[in-house]
Amino acid sequence: MNLQAIQSSGYEVVFGDASELLIDFLQKRNYSKIFFLVDTNTSEHCYPGIALNIAGDIPHDIIEIDNGEENKNIDICIGIWKMLLDFGADRKSLVINLGGGVVTDMGSFAAATYKRGIDFLQIPTTLLSQVDASVGGKTGIDVDAVKNMVGTFTNPQTVIIDPSFLLTLPKREIISGFAEIIKHGLIVDKEYFNAIKFIIFDDIDPLIIHRSVAIKNEVVTADPHEKNIRKKLNYGHTIGHAIESYSLQHDKNPLLHGEAIAIGMIAESYLSHKFADLQQEELNEICDFILSVYPSYKVDENSFDDLLAFMKNDKKNEDDKINFTLLNSIGTSTINYYCSEEEILESIKFYNNLIK
Amino acid sequence: MNLQAIQSSGYEVVFGDASELLIDFLQKRNYSKIFFLVDTNTSEHCYPGIALNIAGDIPHDIIEIDNGEENKNIDICIGIWKMLLDFGADRKSLVINLGGGVVTDMGSFAAATYKRGIDFLQIPTTLLSQVDASVGGKTGIDVDAVKNMVGTFTNPQTVIIDPSFLLTLPKREIISGFAEIIKHGLIVDKEYFNAIKFIIFDDIDPLIIHRSVAIKNEVVTADPHEKNIRKKLNYGHTIGHAIESYSLQHDKNPLLHGEAIAIGMIAESYLSHKFADLQQEELNEICDFILSVYPSYKVDENSFDDLLAFMKNDKKNEDDKINFTLLNSIGTSTINYYCSEEEILESIKFYNNLIK
Repeated sequence: MNLQAIQSSGYEVVFGDASELLIDFLQKRNYSKIFFLVDTNTSEHCYPGIALNIAGDIPHDIIEIDNGEENKNIDICIGIWKMLLDFGADRKSLVINLGGGVVTDMGSFAAATYKRGIDFLQIPTTLLSQVDASVGGKTGIDVDAVKNMVGTFTNPQTVIIDPSFLLTLPKREIISGFAEIIKHGLIVDKEYFNAIKFIIFDDIDPLIIHRSVAIKNEVVTADPHEKNIRKKLNYGHTIGHAIESYSLQHDKNPLLHGEAIAIGMIAESYLSHKFADLQQEELNEICDFILSVYPSYKVDENSFDDLLAFMKNDKKNEDDKINFTLLNSIGTSTINYYCSEEEILESIKFYNNLIK
Repeated sequence: MNLQAIQSSGYEVVFGDASELLIDFLQKRNYSKIFFLVDTNTSEHCYPGIALNIAGDIPHDIIEIDNGEENKNIDICIGIWKMLLDFGADRKSLVINLGGGVVTDMGSFAAATYKRGIDFLQIPTTLLSQVDASVGGKTGIDVDAVKNMVGTFTNPQTVIIDPSFLLTLPKREIISGFAEIIKHGLIVDKEYFNAIKFIIFDDIDPLIIHRSVAIKNEVVTADPHEKNIRKKLNYGHTIGHAIESYSLQHDKNPLLHGEAIAIGMIAESYLSHKFADLQQEELNEICDFILSVYPSYKVDENSFDDLLAFMKNDKKNEDDKINFTLLNSIGTSTINYYCSEEEILESIKFYNNLIK
């Protein structure tokens, strides 16, 4: 099946075989040097196939980092800058980020700032990064466990989405990425939300990915610098990000991004019912569906102070108030709600009670 | 004397009393929080005067760093990011960089990347930063002594130039900054080059600063991302930057930026005579004038390998070739010359022989 390219601001998201699309792209350009940024996983599962296809034709160097969100930090980023320097990367060089969100976020930040900016290309290899990190031009790294505290808005030259990479992923990773797909349905597209209930995790329909990218692209091209409606994509993330950060610091086996966002979406649906127009029936529908997909994770009440502290550092806040996107119904949402600390904790308790 | 504001790309460079201009700017905006970034020097000599004038009206926090080029590094930058976070800076906050090039370069990089970018304002307080770092939108930090290895092109909201700050500077700093003024004359304006010979270092004519900013502004607005003619500003810097970096690492009392650039301009004038159209007479005129202003500094021949290594990391290079801007005459220049390692070392020996 041929999926149409999606036009974003100044670049395209193309779908298909990564090697073919990459060769096609490079034939039109004239880069002085080419670098692949990979992690331990993509070095083993994704890079070899591409290397086999391009090997003789396209000389390149490889920079490898350890996989895992805890590595999306400034120290690893400094390592990438130094490797680029050591390998002689100049302003006409290209960085190809081959990996999940850690590789695409950090690799694009490293490229966007190396010698004041060199070209980069995204090849997201996880479901999460294909439907989320792939479009929107956000680059970033975590500092002191504050997610994406430092970054830029910089667009890639192109984004290549190859659904076959998903076959190499553990099911837990797939289900984590699915949280962003659920979110896309909930914030702007009820029909899509109904359709994705029939997803088959072992064999994701590429049309689902395509539709999610198209939804996200529509939102981010309308508001690239997150001044207004792009904040819709923050639904589930104010509380979810805080739970994810806390879990990263405290749990032996921390939550994956999407697992935390799933909890955030339930809590923020509760707030949507209480403060926006979300009806009880749809609240139940959302909770039932999310709980049917995601494992139970009790949020420790001892973490509440830390969670609030994380939320206060959220980039969307202004004047120390914690900013939310809430649902008016499944498929419609409104930005810039502010909820009190008490109400926020109440929403987390609501989630905790559901999984009793 | 009222100096006219200079229009750059999307922002203005204004001249006059810093406090008045700052109050004027802030009255038109609505920032959630305001931060001053200062260094040990400006904290003592420049900030108090401003604080006295704005104190009651404009609540703000202060972030202070040690002065000196060796502090323009990623560790100090991380410290600035964390302070911003601790002070609760959000996307509607403003950073005011009050200082020389270290403060304006690093403060603007920190602001341009904090939470993917917040507003910043430049108040350059040294002659060097007033005539050089003030316009052009370059932000940056050094990594491993490689100057500005990491940075962005991001414009400030405005630039305030208050010539009275120069009265607080040691004469050595003034003379260092003067190197960029000489450069502006040499690359595009012979008349200006002749005029600045009569500069009085103890009482710099603000018109000189204004003309230098205007020259730089004309060049950078024509080519903001340094794809072509902006490289003219690199004259003297290919060799000068390398000597500066080496001196920073090896000398007890390292060269100031402009002192190194002065050497670079002599060496690159030699290359201009050899490879471009610069005539012997003008070469002599340039050397005589620069040597009459700057102290003698013998470039150690043992440093030559290291100097070449630094030059190879210059951001303007492509394909491992070392890029130069050369003079055709005083007041005209051409970009994208490439010289061999031998020729480069010959030009440094030429300088060394002059100061024998």
